[in-house]
Amino acid sequence: MKEMLYEGKAKKIFLTDNENEVIVYYKDDATAFNGEKKGTIDEKGIMNNQITTILFEYLAAHGVKTHYIKTLSDREQLVKKVEIIPLEVIVRNVAAGSFSKRLGVPEGTELNTTIFEICYKNDALGDPLINDSHAVAIGLATFEELKEIYGITATINDLLKEFFQKIGLILVDFKIEFGKDAQGNILLADEISPDTCRLWDAVTREKMDKDRFRRNLDNVKGAYEEVINRMKKG
Amino acid sequence: MKEMLYEGKAKKIFLTDNENEVIVYYKDDATAFNGEKKGTIDEKGIMNNQITTILFEYLAAHGVKTHYIKTLSDREQLVKKVEIIPLEVIVRNVAAGSFSKRLGVPEGTELNTTIFEICYKNDALGDPLINDSHAVAIGLATFEELKEIYGITATINDLLKEFFQKIGLILVDFKIEFGKDAQGNILLADEISPDTCRLWDAVTREKMDKDRFRRNLDNVKGAYEEVINRMKKG
Repeated sequence: MKEMLYEGKAKKIFLTDNENEVIVYYKDDATAFNGEKKGTIDEKGIMNNQITTILFEYLAAHGVKTHYIKTLSDREQLVKKVEIIPLEVIVRNVAAGSFSKRLGVPEGTELNTTIFEICYKNDALGDPLINDSHAVAIGLATFEELKEIYGITATINDLLKEFFQKIGLILVDFKIEFGKDAQGNILLADEISPDTCRLWDAVTREKMDKDRFRRNLDNVKGAYEEVINRMKKG
Repeated sequence: MKEMLYEGKAKKIFLTDNENEVIVYYKDDATAFNGEKKGTIDEKGIMNNQITTILFEYLAAHGVKTHYIKTLSDREQLVKKVEIIPLEVIVRNVAAGSFSKRLGVPEGTELNTTIFEICYKNDALGDPLINDSHAVAIGLATFEELKEIYGITATINDLLKEFFQKIGLILVDFKIEFGKDAQGNILLADEISPDTCRLWDAVTREKMDKDRFRRNLDNVKGAYEEVINRMKKG
């Protein structure tokens, strides 16, 4: 194995012989509430690698520029090296999670408009919600970059909603991250998986995502497996 | 005295014989940290009535539509009755307060861009920071109304910065509220005073506003008096 560049909560990043490419290694570690709750989900790394692979290939096929190059093994992807923009970009199609709690809106409430949120990716500050002028004021991005990011994010939401709807899942909300490559292009980076999406069964509304871990529900692994099985069939 | 319509933390609202007009009565009560800290500032009501009168007349003279009609007594203003839009609209020219705390930016830091924030005016939820899509999603305003509000707010910031600069005060940040009149016009409402602005002496950077109360500094009343004195001279 090559030199490790960075270890995050759910993934490790390794250098390669090519300075423009790195390897993402998916771990089984699971954390919630800004790292307050810690645990592992058996084979999560393998499952999230598979799920992210399918979704990034799907998005790329529909014109979304991503950091993804190819999948190397059951836990490893080769990706373009990017400088991560320190923003968590969140889309909400249905009320849930921190949005419901902060604004007193019951989970499952339909919304008048799709919600786009950005949070400052900063563990020490607890990844606080910010707005565009905050991001620009403290130098995280320019207004032009934010406009481009929101545009790509809206496209991704449309594509993912359709994808999951076809396999009987509601895309309640999700978090994505972007990076800039050596040429300054903004690319979708990180992962898209049940760690970073809320997915509800369209019929039963059962949670099929990391909320099962966050809320101490049973059969966390089974929910991730069910998502993969539907994706492979669908 | 007429029937009281509403009592807030710093003001009371009374009905009048005209259904389109109400009387605002300025109290000496002071609160901070969402009502956790309570006290009074001697004659604050009288001072804030004077300060708001001068500022609303100044803004109106420069084309800003406000709810203000006239001042009736040392603590009372006659204003147009409006339905308050449940948003606290905040402008930040220099880092301070909750912005500094939430984002780890030292007070007094110059910012790359002027910050415009909206908070959901809801005591039970602690007036949480929101963004435009949140406001629209939960029905607080439309995107068109928000655009109009930001436009008026930017004009108010330019006018107030200039006003305070001339009397040796830095307008660090301020909070305003808007209401809709019977015809649906969006009007500046509430007050503009050292309760709702951070004002620093341009030379000494001494705080001349409610932060003296929030942070248990001495001579709270004297700071408000100094602001009035400079306004009357300037």
